[in-house]
Amino acid sequence: MSVSETVEITGHLMDHGVLSRVLDDIREYNGDYTIDRFDVGRETDDMSHAVITVITDDDEGLQRLLMRLQTRAVNMVDPGEAEVSLTLADGVFPDGFYSTTNLETRVRVDGRWLQVGNPEMDCGLILERNEDGEPVRVYTLPMSDVRSGMLVVCGASGIKVSIPKVDKGGEAFGFMESDVSSEKPQAVLVRQVADGMREAKAAGKKVLWVGGPGVVHTGAAPAMVAMVDAGYVDVLFAGNALATHDIESSLYGTSLGVDLAQGRGVEHGHEHHIRALNTIRKQGSIKAAVENGVLTGGIMHALVRHEKKFVLVGSVRDDGPLPDVYTDVLDGQRAMRAELTDVGFCLMVATMLHSVATGNILPASIPLVCVDINPATVTKLADRGSSQARGIVTDVGLFLEQLAQELVEDYRRA
Amino acid sequence: MSVSETVEITGHLMDHGVLSRVLDDIREYNGDYTIDRFDVGRETDDMSHAVITVITDDDEGLQRLLMRLQTRAVNMVDPGEAEVSLTLADGVFPDGFYSTTNLETRVRVDGRWLQVGNPEMDCGLILERNEDGEPVRVYTLPMSDVRSGMLVVCGASGIKVSIPKVDKGGEAFGFMESDVSSEKPQAVLVRQVADGMREAKAAGKKVLWVGGPGVVHTGAAPAMVAMVDAGYVDVLFAGNALATHDIESSLYGTSLGVDLAQGRGVEHGHEHHIRALNTIRKQGSIKAAVENGVLTGGIMHALVRHEKKFVLVGSVRDDGPLPDVYTDVLDGQRAMRAELTDVGFCLMVATMLHSVATGNILPASIPLVCVDINPATVTKLADRGSSQARGIVTDVGLFLEQLAQELVEDYRRA
Amino acid sequence: MSVSETVEITGHLMDHGVLSRVLDDIREYNGDYTIDRFDVGRETDDMSHAVITVITDDDEGLQRLLMRLQTRAVNMVDPGEAEVSLTLADGVFPDGFYSTTNLETRVRVDGRWLQVGNPEMDCGLILERNEDGEPVRVYTLPMSDVRSGMLVVCGASGIKVSIPKVDKGGEAFGFMESDVSSEKPQAVLVRQVADGMREAKAAGKKVLWVGGPGVVHTGAAPAMVAMVDAGYVDVLFAGNALATHDIESSLYGTSLGVDLAQGRGVEHGHEHHIRALNTIRKQGSIKAAVENGVLTGGIMHALVRHEKKFVLVGSVRDDGPLPDVYTDVLDGQRAMRAELTDVGFCLMVATMLHSVATGNILPASIPLVCVDINPATVTKLADRGSSQARGIVTDVGLFLEQLAQELVEDYRRA
Amino acid sequence: MSVSETVEITGHLMDHGVLSRVLDDIREYNGDYTIDRFDVGRETDDMSHAVITVITDDDEGLQRLLMRLQTRAVNMVDPGEAEVSLTLADGVFPDGFYSTTNLETRVRVDGRWLQVGNPEMDCGLILERNEDGEPVRVYTLPMSDVRSGMLVVCGASGIKVSIPKVDKGGEAFGFMESDVSSEKPQAVLVRQVADGMREAKAAGKKVLWVGGPGVVHTGAAPAMVAMVDAGYVDVLFAGNALATHDIESSLYGTSLGVDLAQGRGVEHGHEHHIRALNTIRKQGSIKAAVENGVLTGGIMHALVRHEKKFVLVGSVRDDGPLPDVYTDVLDGQRAMRAELTDVGFCLMVATMLHSVATGNILPASIPLVCVDINPATVTKLADRGSSQARGIVTDVGLFLEQLAQELVEDYRRA
Repeated sequence: MSVSETVEITGHLMDHGVLSRVLDDIREYNGDYTIDRFDVGRETDDMSHAVITVITDDDEGLQRLLMRLQTRAVNMVDPGEAEVSLTLADGVFPDGFYSTTNLETRVRVDGRWLQVGNPEMDCGLILERNEDGEPVRVYTLPMSDVRSGMLVVCGASGIKVSIPKVDKGGEAFGFMESDVSSEKPQAVLVRQVADGMREAKAAGKKVLWVGGPGVVHTGAAPAMVAMVDAGYVDVLFAGNALATHDIESSLYGTSLGVDLAQGRGVEHGHEHHIRALNTIRKQGSIKAAVENGVLTGGIMHALVRHEKKFVLVGSVRDDGPLPDVYTDVLDGQRAMRAELTDVGFCLMVATMLHSVATGNILPASIPLVCVDINPATVTKLADRGSSQARGIVTDVGLFLEQLAQELVEDYRRA
Repeated sequence: MSVSETVEITGHLMDHGVLSRVLDDIREYNGDYTIDRFDVGRETDDMSHAVITVITDDDEGLQRLLMRLQTRAVNMVDPGEAEVSLTLADGVFPDGFYSTTNLETRVRVDGRWLQVGNPEMDCGLILERNEDGEPVRVYTLPMSDVRSGMLVVCGASGIKVSIPKVDKGGEAFGFMESDVSSEKPQAVLVRQVADGMREAKAAGKKVLWVGGPGVVHTGAAPAMVAMVDAGYVDVLFAGNALATHDIESSLYGTSLGVDLAQGRGVEHGHEHHIRALNTIRKQGSIKAAVENGVLTGGIMHALVRHEKKFVLVGSVRDDGPLPDVYTDVLDGQRAMRAELTDVGFCLMVATMLHSVATGNILPASIPLVCVDINPATVTKLADRGSSQARGIVTDVGLFLEQLAQELVEDYRRA
Repeated sequence: MSVSETVEITGHLMDHGVLSRVLDDIREYNGDYTIDRFDVGRETDDMSHAVITVITDDDEGLQRLLMRLQTRAVNMVDPGEAEVSLTLADGVFPDGFYSTTNLETRVRVDGRWLQVGNPEMDCGLILERNEDGEPVRVYTLPMSDVRSGMLVVCGASGIKVSIPKVDKGGEAFGFMESDVSSEKPQAVLVRQVADGMREAKAAGKKVLWVGGPGVVHTGAAPAMVAMVDAGYVDVLFAGNALATHDIESSLYGTSLGVDLAQGRGVEHGHEHHIRALNTIRKQGSIKAAVENGVLTGGIMHALVRHEKKFVLVGSVRDDGPLPDVYTDVLDGQRAMRAELTDVGFCLMVATMLHSVATGNILPASIPLVCVDINPATVTKLADRGSSQARGIVTDVGLFLEQLAQELVEDYRRA
Repeated sequence: MSVSETVEITGHLMDHGVLSRVLDDIREYNGDYTIDRFDVGRETDDMSHAVITVITDDDEGLQRLLMRLQTRAVNMVDPGEAEVSLTLADGVFPDGFYSTTNLETRVRVDGRWLQVGNPEMDCGLILERNEDGEPVRVYTLPMSDVRSGMLVVCGASGIKVSIPKVDKGGEAFGFMESDVSSEKPQAVLVRQVADGMREAKAAGKKVLWVGGPGVVHTGAAPAMVAMVDAGYVDVLFAGNALATHDIESSLYGTSLGVDLAQGRGVEHGHEHHIRALNTIRKQGSIKAAVENGVLTGGIMHALVRHEKKFVLVGSVRDDGPLPDVYTDVLDGQRAMRAELTDVGFCLMVATMLHSVATGNILPASIPLVCVDINPATVTKLADRGSSQARGIVTDVGLFLEQLAQELVEDYRRA
């Protein structure tokens, strides 16, 4: 005795094989389908619209398939009302909880559509009611932060998602294809990233950077400092490594033993970096080190001087770490979430760990460019659901050098 | 007015350019040198011995150069007595503290040589005295764990390090060259790793595995389970990802959307992994999930069943995480250190993050093999000071399959 | 004043975004389109059918767009008759010549459809007429081989292409997704390749191998010899390097200085390989070296002993080369083409150069698997038009070891 | 009954483990040694000098070991006279022929030392005598070009090699370490390459470029054209691909389907490149296409306009090829050798095939920099004996852009 539901999807269904993936999902979940209607855009720029009936063996399977399909912006034609369940334990969702996408999401409660304020993938949806039992808001919450007694949306009923509208800012990246390749005319890509940042700033939005220590190793710190000075870095997400190597470089002129002035690479010069860590720990914070005149240059110094935010989150391979580093990764994730408001553009440079971490919490509506010499970093990001990610496989040092030349008037290599 | 000190080194100085690197270090620290004596081994297997006078501008520079040289097993001819200083704040070493290597280390206090029990690189050396002021022991302590009022060794005086003696276990790997290459006769390497593990077990030592989620993605979980069953996995260091994908695979037959039975890869199937996390969180722990019959297969299940240890340490990109995961990375490092006793062989598979983290805390005397399809992982490990690391660039899935065939009688692919 | 043409396509248009790419092509050629009809398969396995009118500014642009679309198996609804022009010079096609795909192709001449016997991409179509002027056959010919006075098909009129029918042999690979990844359950993939070879042999077809020197470097020569002995290698395409390293290995026990018995890698041991070359050159051919008892083991020896074909084509980096090597690359291509008859399965291992070269001349109907530790090799192959290629990113040595275990009864590692 | 010979080596033996590799070679050839004397430089910049007696089982083994050691610049203390043998067949050296290095080489004949004019590795040494039987010259000849009746040096007697003197030009690269890494301060490296080119030009030498199609794909053609215009490209070695993509780009504004103006990548746009090939073939040569106004831009156009040399050598994967391409690889190698005279600097960009081919024929005395986004290209070059190669792992497009900014006054990105 099978169960079924009718779903629909609107958009450029042909592009990037959207519809193909929807049908693949149905098969993967052991479902079946009939395409009830398929209006393909007649002209080049027309949108397409499909109505599909999906069939599964039982209701649990159906609910899970419907939730899966929503990650493709496929909604039920008749979504009905959201169902909610009470959580019975801290840090645990009820069975059958709705697992979120990073798309714009609305939830229908008591006949009204509530907009989810902070789309984030792999979370639950928490319904807040006021004292009179009226729905106040629905918001995403990660599993670790849910508390006993909260109301959590279960199943796919009463939920609509929509893919980001391609506005002007998005268009700047519309012609960057999603495939990752090192054989791309890189100079054009540099200009497009610069344009994306300028547009975000012109719209009053923040530019978020996510960086790995390669920024320092490739000698790009001066370029990044120039962009901090010019106002193109509002927030930095990074780990202990970027900050430590940047500080080590300022204090000792080295970075993990790479002598930047000479282009000479040596092995693990651990003695320098461990002393740099101790120096800042003695000061109590990076800010204090700047204020006390101990730290006088580099990226972290520039951020402090311009009162820009940075969130440093620790990892198991850290030495030290710096006093500013969140050693608890959940605390770190919370601190990162708190800085996402008003972000209008995100540039990820030379870090797989922090790029994926940021991709996990970033709404799909925010333009996202990932730059790395390793194609796997970009591929991984896209595979994990950050489908808006545009990848540039190139040398980070030269890329940031060129980007600074684009963005900062009078920027010259020393 | 320059200062100088006479140092010496014994060993196969020609091999791998040891002496060449010593001289490079001296130049890098703006030092100068004269080679006072150099007895090169006359016959093929003879050891060489060099006596070198190093000269620097001031004593601080000299102390730092001497500490640097000890990472090469270069000791002062007349080391004298260790100097110690009191720490004045938690988590901060005194200026000029001795930064450790991962080599066997002895410290001379009150005329006696004390052996450092737990060599670990990038730490401080803490001197413990009893109530009568007599030196009791010297041990390594990471910067984060130092407390105000401890006695910390400063400068290079009174310290001797020695490179690991190449015993029979080491010899098994002696002929694996240190250079990383994918163009190696891999079948021979598989056998050598198997021999290394057998020797460690025969000597009553533990085999430590460090693994990334690639172990599961490449379909190698059955092979690893067979090796757990056969007693070749005593401890596992990993992150949330390996355990979650292993558990997801057991609960749903998938791993991040890879259908293992069919060899079909799909994109981020987030719905499965987030539900797997919730299921285990509801049970309270992986062990509870096994005991309650919720988790009935896979690597984690095998470890629980055989009462083997595992240390899972979180990272900023984690969903969930599993209840067993240390979310504080310093707590995680401490838990890892606690499991190093009696480890006689370490195999790192498909993870850069946890491999570097483990390399950071592992004594140089423990044989270490790192297997990854990405040459950069192995290179990075060696560059960061784990010079004993032997790298094998190969496919993790096929490698573990072959390793199981070597180690486990009657092991057959299903 | 624009011109237009109506085209159609039938197939699983949703899968792999086929239709999406067709529309992209139209835009890229500055064309416009209206979708006149689109019948999407209603049930899961139904085929779809689309009728599209394409519009361009002038006829030259239209012809080029139509030719481009045929690479996607998009045909004109009313193809009419083929147009032919005389070539006026050796090695040069007439302007506007039809550039072929590797798909099954028919050409309409004098009202009859002629099947193109040897589909190959990037060639011209030559029409042969008998003395009475009647069309005898149409065949592909590469640019370098065309002679003055030949009749060459121009424009897209009168041509129909069709994508390969997915028969049982193809199905074996149907569930291997086209995306390249090292995170795949490799053991399953090994079995699928073995099945593909068995099916080809069972159908009386030949198995074509394309190999690079990595086959020897990774220690896989014994596995490959076992597969030659067992009849799973009918033809080998390779360069001077594979054969030289294989022969060097047999004569001296080394391959470019890699000591295979010990798993020890050393640098360029040029002395050995240059002497191996001289030894075979002295014999006059590899076959003579086998017959004279000079060459007694290895892959080339096994091929000679079983009277299997091999085509070795030279490259600019060759030393020697071996006397059997085609030093003229066009001669080499011709020799390769001559061996394609009855090939039913193609395995490419560890060579980008020869894989792309073979992909260039292989009909799309032949199942094709490419194995390399470098993802770029597989990606490149697919990008260049060998869309049937299935990529496996893995270690070549372990892969061939496993493949031999699958295919050859009693195969054991020594 | 063993045989022995005394050898010596002078130089910075500690640097880069030179002596260590010499001893490794001896072991690899199953030899034994005693170090008779070892004078290590006492001060920082002093040279070292070692005298070693090597022992093997028989004379054939000894001769081969001595020849091997000469690749390390290890010479016999008492070299004696060269032994020569007559070749008996075309294309075959006598057994025991001396296989050359790419180092400066002298040969002692009839009591006189003759300088080898054209050092090249993996060749034989041909002795030319005049009618009176007096030695006229000794020169390298590749195996394929030797003819019956020539006199070929056999064994290691009478030969001395010396490593390149580090002159000022070399010093510019002296501080680039030989290890390959993408984590290097790239801007400094750009400047060093520019300095190397300026020095070569200032010394009246030629700058040789070796390039792959990535130069065009990454959008660097305008930068390279500017450097051709400014006189920094005297000779180009490449394959059919670079020239074809460059010409395709000029004729159609695309390169293998990459739309350079938009930074948009598409798949194999084979139709364009095959037409570009046909167009040039119709003209008869690239030069004719320029002169007839058919080809009006790009790299090849710039080379023709400035009457610079280019050698295009074919490969088995070529379409077409262009009429200027050597389809016989031995003819191609000969054409390359003919252009090496007076080359003072060599830059290899984005090609493994042609880089290795050029490395094979280039004397070790010529400074050589290899730029590629793939670390394996650089590693391979060094492994094959081009030990003078300096590797830069970076994005080719941005690198050439920066290089043009360094070298060409008023160079601006459009």
